Amino acid sequence: MAWNTDLRWRLPAVCLALQAATLVLFGVFARYDADADARWWGARSPGNGSRDLDNEFYYRYPSFQDVHVMVFVGFGFLMTFLQRYGFSALGFNFLLAAFGIQWALLMQGWFHSFKDGHILLGVENLINADFCVASVCVAFGAVLGKVSPVQLLIMTFVQVTLFSVNEFMLLNLLLVKDAGGSMTIHTFGAYFGLTVTWILYRRNLEQSKRRQTSVYHSDLFAMIGTLFLWMYWPSFNSAVSYHGDAQHRAALNTYCSLAASVLAAVAVSSAVHRKGRLDMVHIQNATLAGGVGVGTAAEMMLMPYGALLVGGLCGGLSTLGFEFLTPFLESRLRIQDTCGIHNLHGIPGIVGAIVGAVTAACATPDVYGKAGLVHSFDFEGLKQNWTAKTQGKFQIFGLLLTLAMALVGGSVMGLILRLPFWGQAADENCFEDSVYWEMEEEKSRAFPEDTTLKPPAPTGPSGPSASLGPSAS
Amino acid sequence: MAWNTDLRWRLPAVCLALQAATLVLFGVFARYDADADARWWGARSPGNGSRDLDNEFYYRYPSFQDVHVMVFVGFGFLMTFLQRYGFSALGFNFLLAAFGIQWALLMQGWFHSFKDGHILLGVENLINADFCVASVCVAFGAVLGKVSPVQLLIMTFVQVTLFSVNEFMLLNLLLVKDAGGSMTIHTFGAYFGLTVTWILYRRNLEQSKRRQTSVYHSDLFAMIGTLFLWMYWPSFNSAVSYHGDAQHRAALNTYCSLAASVLAAVAVSSAVHRKGRLDMVHIQNATLAGGVGVGTAAEMMLMPYGALLVGGLCGGLSTLGFEFLTPFLESRLRIQDTCGIHNLHGIPGIVGAIVGAVTAACATPDVYGKAGLVHSFDFEGLKQNWTAKTQGKFQIFGLLLTLAMALVGGSVMGLILRLPFWGQAADENCFEDSVYWEMEEEKSRAFPEDTTLKPPAPTGPSGPSASLGPSAS
Amino acid sequence: MAWNTDLRWRLPAVCLALQAATLVLFGVFARYDADADARWWGARSPGNGSRDLDNEFYYRYPSFQDVHVMVFVGFGFLMTFLQRYGFSALGFNFLLAAFGIQWALLMQGWFHSFKDGHILLGVENLINADFCVASVCVAFGAVLGKVSPVQLLIMTFVQVTLFSVNEFMLLNLLLVKDAGGSMTIHTFGAYFGLTVTWILYRRNLEQSKRRQTSVYHSDLFAMIGTLFLWMYWPSFNSAVSYHGDAQHRAALNTYCSLAASVLAAVAVSSAVHRKGRLDMVHIQNATLAGGVGVGTAAEMMLMPYGALLVGGLCGGLSTLGFEFLTPFLESRLRIQDTCGIHNLHGIPGIVGAIVGAVTAACATPDVYGKAGLVHSFDFEGLKQNWTAKTQGKFQIFGLLLTLAMALVGGSVMGLILRLPFWGQAADENCFEDSVYWEMEEEKSRAFPEDTTLKPPAPTGPSGPSASLGPSAS
Repeated sequence: MAWNTDLRWRLPAVCLALQAATLVLFGVFARYDADADARWWGARSPGNGSRDLDNEFYYRYPSFQDVHVMVFVGFGFLMTFLQRYGFSALGFNFLLAAFGIQWALLMQGWFHSFKDGHILLGVENLINADFCVASVCVAFGAVLGKVSPVQLLIMTFVQVTLFSVNEFMLLNLLLVKDAGGSMTIHTFGAYFGLTVTWILYRRNLEQSKRRQTSVYHSDLFAMIGTLFLWMYWPSFNSAVSYHGDAQHRAALNTYCSLAASVLAAVAVSSAVHRKGRLDMVHIQNATLAGGVGVGTAAEMMLMPYGALLVGGLCGGLSTLGFEFLTPFLESRLRIQDTCGIHNLHGIPGIVGAIVGAVTAACATPDVYGKAGLVHSFDFEGLKQNWTAKTQGKFQIFGLLLTLAMALVGGSVMGLILRLPFWGQAADENCFEDSVYWEMEEEKSRAFPEDTTLKPPAPTGPSGPSASLGPSAS
Repeated sequence: MAWNTDLRWRLPAVCLALQAATLVLFGVFARYDADADARWWGARSPGNGSRDLDNEFYYRYPSFQDVHVMVFVGFGFLMTFLQRYGFSALGFNFLLAAFGIQWALLMQGWFHSFKDGHILLGVENLINADFCVASVCVAFGAVLGKVSPVQLLIMTFVQVTLFSVNEFMLLNLLLVKDAGGSMTIHTFGAYFGLTVTWILYRRNLEQSKRRQTSVYHSDLFAMIGTLFLWMYWPSFNSAVSYHGDAQHRAALNTYCSLAASVLAAVAVSSAVHRKGRLDMVHIQNATLAGGVGVGTAAEMMLMPYGALLVGGLCGGLSTLGFEFLTPFLESRLRIQDTCGIHNLHGIPGIVGAIVGAVTAACATPDVYGKAGLVHSFDFEGLKQNWTAKTQGKFQIFGLLLTLAMALVGGSVMGLILRLPFWGQAADENCFEDSVYWEMEEEKSRAFPEDTTLKPPAPTGPSGPSASLGPSAS
Repeated sequence: MAWNTDLRWRLPAVCLALQAATLVLFGVFARYDADADARWWGARSPGNGSRDLDNEFYYRYPSFQDVHVMVFVGFGFLMTFLQRYGFSALGFNFLLAAFGIQWALLMQGWFHSFKDGHILLGVENLINADFCVASVCVAFGAVLGKVSPVQLLIMTFVQVTLFSVNEFMLLNLLLVKDAGGSMTIHTFGAYFGLTVTWILYRRNLEQSKRRQTSVYHSDLFAMIGTLFLWMYWPSFNSAVSYHGDAQHRAALNTYCSLAASVLAAVAVSSAVHRKGRLDMVHIQNATLAGGVGVGTAAEMMLMPYGALLVGGLCGGLSTLGFEFLTPFLESRLRIQDTCGIHNLHGIPGIVGAIVGAVTAACATPDVYGKAGLVHSFDFEGLKQNWTAKTQGKFQIFGLLLTLAMALVGGSVMGLILRLPFWGQAADENCFEDSVYWEMEEEKSRAFPEDTTLKPPAPTGPSGPSASLGPSAS
């Protein structure tokens, strides 16, 4: 079968169709919320003591910007580690996130900000849209280098939709707490992406292996992503927590957890190398596991030492995962996980969900104060009769539901993306920018391997290269 | 004519003269405003309910830092796309911006913060100085690679001066609204820069063409600039809006507009390539056009769908401009626009000005609330009798005045910069760092083309290369 | 003597031991402060007019994030200028900072936030921990490329300890003001690091000279560090100043000072080159000297012109230092200062301390207001009878004490690090990532010099290379 990677009409058509759709839906539904509407000025009534700074903007905007950087620079540059896939890593991440935030504003808006026929938007919606898209960026990491931008846009559409449904069930039906998204963002994104890449298994991917490595400079570019993710993760985990102590504590816990991750990742990375040398893959990824691991519990009274413990544990487990689990998953389970998201988001996500459940279950008025406990876990209204143990139990239900949603959704998604007309590259042309990008130096001496890039048309799983292995279905 | 690019005494002399001048003027004029003065503490009078957080610092500083990043990292790295001009892109942008903000603090201070013989400085002045310099960075994009740092400093001095005059006329005489600077920053900067480069036309620039392209890594560096500009643009457009809803709304609209820009840029980029491939030039630039396009209207009740519409439109137009207009401008109108600022700042700037005028003209008390309308457009005092339509009309006057100022100012500037003693490089040595920078590897194998760099002295428009084309005047 | 750079058990053991130690100490001592504790919600008592935004988080968090970026991206990337030491620059800086902040939270906590047997942590502690670690990053610059990660962890442990002691003596015993840390951070870090590198003198380091230079791309990476340091320095100097005017003024002064630094650095850089060309080393470093130079005085009424003056002075002195002093220090005093920290942090740090002392000594109620003077310098309680002159005098005592601590502490540190079993590289293998990092392309053509890397075992100061010079002790 010959796959055609010429996207001349497919990519523009999909982009424009999706943009036109969100435009119409925004026109029908999207309006400003009270704090972003020009009527706010008149309604502010300084007489009752409210002031300019009480606008939600000042509570959330700095955190929003940090989260925004994580999604676009953090995830984008983290994936530039491949030697010849930097344009796609940055460009496709940019594209899917730019569409994803629009669709997320709508989906999350219908579920959470719908009033009198309109979705009311404010800064918190922007943060939540970025969160939702972060989950897609996670999944992108699993299929990096093997899918076309058309596939990514479709995946984004479906994943944002399912994310929003899952998030609604967790937060509004199971009444779970998950401010930093260990479950909703990381666990969901990771297992969704892993399921997709499992279904999109490429039998002859070893033909692209020489491009599936880094070079010196690509590893430095990737560190831009790592460091911005690492530095701003405290903002991520605290961005939508309640005002005041919860935001404050979530940032502090995440800061501690991430610090411990770094030491654990370095220790294990050196220990598993025969000469004790460090591996950039571990430093780029496992150092971040602590941020995932305290995603649910960061706003709770986890205690600084609890954060260190979780961070150290996740950093170590993640490094071990890169060293031992990823090769196993690829060779035995046929899960080709380009960025190793199972180690950075999958395992730490599950750990984070469990840590959150345990921390919630152990909450006492002694530690939180009576008012603080009620406020922190919303033990009023619907949850009036809940105890900390009930909360802990429902947290676990949330994890299980998330895993189910991710596996089922990812399977459906994978089957759709497996259709042959989305412009995906052949197995031997994976991890290569020049398939989708006009390259200045295509014919120059700088990258001689480019000239050996086979034309995409006559190749593919059942093309000439099939003689190298059994034909893919 | 032999041009001498040795700046040994010229560059230090100009730097020190300018720095000494601003130092003296700061000594005579610059003081702290009430919120930055040590007397603030005593004047705060907690009795009347004012508190620490009421200091303007907390409303503006986070936005200021984002704008600061856009000017220095955003514009700086965006211009590193050239393969051999990264040092100059970053270094000269750094230099001109560092001088420009000082001079802008003075110029804008005299116009807007002058009280009892002193310019009173606070965080809003810092933002406005960065805004002013952003306009110079835009113009730098047109002449990138073709001017010396001495020329850039002179251009900065003149452009900041004219910017401040134009801004004063728009904001204080025409009473126009332009918080995100579609007119004052982008339109002015673009047409000023284009006029300068038109007058500095280099007949034999094709001799430097091989350096006027990117290489793989330089495109990745440029993406650092693109992404930081894109992410922080909501801060840019909201940084000096009124407290509360206006800042909030400006950020939200810009976020939406930029998202639509990305999809439109990708769609058009793919559609205009014969094989449907994406072009990094478009992704690096046209994705930002939406930020320019809502610069004036972002703080108004543009509505989220309005923002999407403007962003999509600008993203598409900008990409088409790069593909079709830039080559035309260069070949027919002799406008050599290195970074394509006409597509990123020129067209979207004009679109933004018109969108702002229309949005203002359509404002009703129904949408803004009665108090909100008066507050949003300052319909009190001088503007007591203005209607929304008056505002819209004056917005258009503002655009026309800006264009006139840019064209006239740019012409004068161009003629001054055309003088032969500013240390500019010969046509065949453009886009080359080693003219102005000490290069470690100058004699190494890494960049063999360096060794072919001709000594600047015997070359130039009327040098040997003149045989390749008619002599430049 | 054969040095073994295989860290397989040493690095993991040190990492895990340090992490375990801080974990236990956190468990015993570290708790949340009132603003980060869940009981804050109940204690807030809206009745008395306190509101969510009064939480310290909203005053400090944006500044904290900027400081965080400076430590991890700023210092990290600044040190990637070496052609083959980018992994180590980023990775080791990441490692030492991640450990350092944990240890600093404890050390500074015992000195400053200890209450009823517990260290109470909040966002200000996070900033101060980052400050403390910044001092270690400064010292790292002196020994960059010549020490192992094990040595760096030990140095971090000792330096953070001594930093905290010195800081306590300055701030709590001498009652000195030093919000931006000209003394506590920069002077201490620089002279500590210089003393260490003096004691670790490597006689045959010229054997690694070819790697102790930059290449084109490594200089661009370094500019990421420079620019983020430069842009966020106003946040650094204002992060822990008093709420309101002091924070506001500190940011403003630093902004001005840094701008002047850039012009001075460019002027001097061009003036000292025989052809007037600029040197990236100067642009990367000396442009930042103004931030160091106003570290102490930024929150005082230094006046904008004072800031320009200090910034210009420091930028010029720093550039001259790189050009003339660093070679002298290396050849005559045997101080091998890889990053030239003496020019960026040493000299400007001392200048900053003196500027701070003079500015303090000249403070009058006329300028500060009566209440402002008392508030700015805490002239109440213990300091009830202090005059501005007393303050100035004690500022100088603070500088002298800092220098003494740095020299004595650095000497002890150097002697410890000179022990032969820390995994340091031989003189001819310095500035080389592949000693401590698994390199993908080790055997590829991309970096042919790698294949010439001698095995570390049989070399060293007294190995075969000793024939090239007198044997090191």
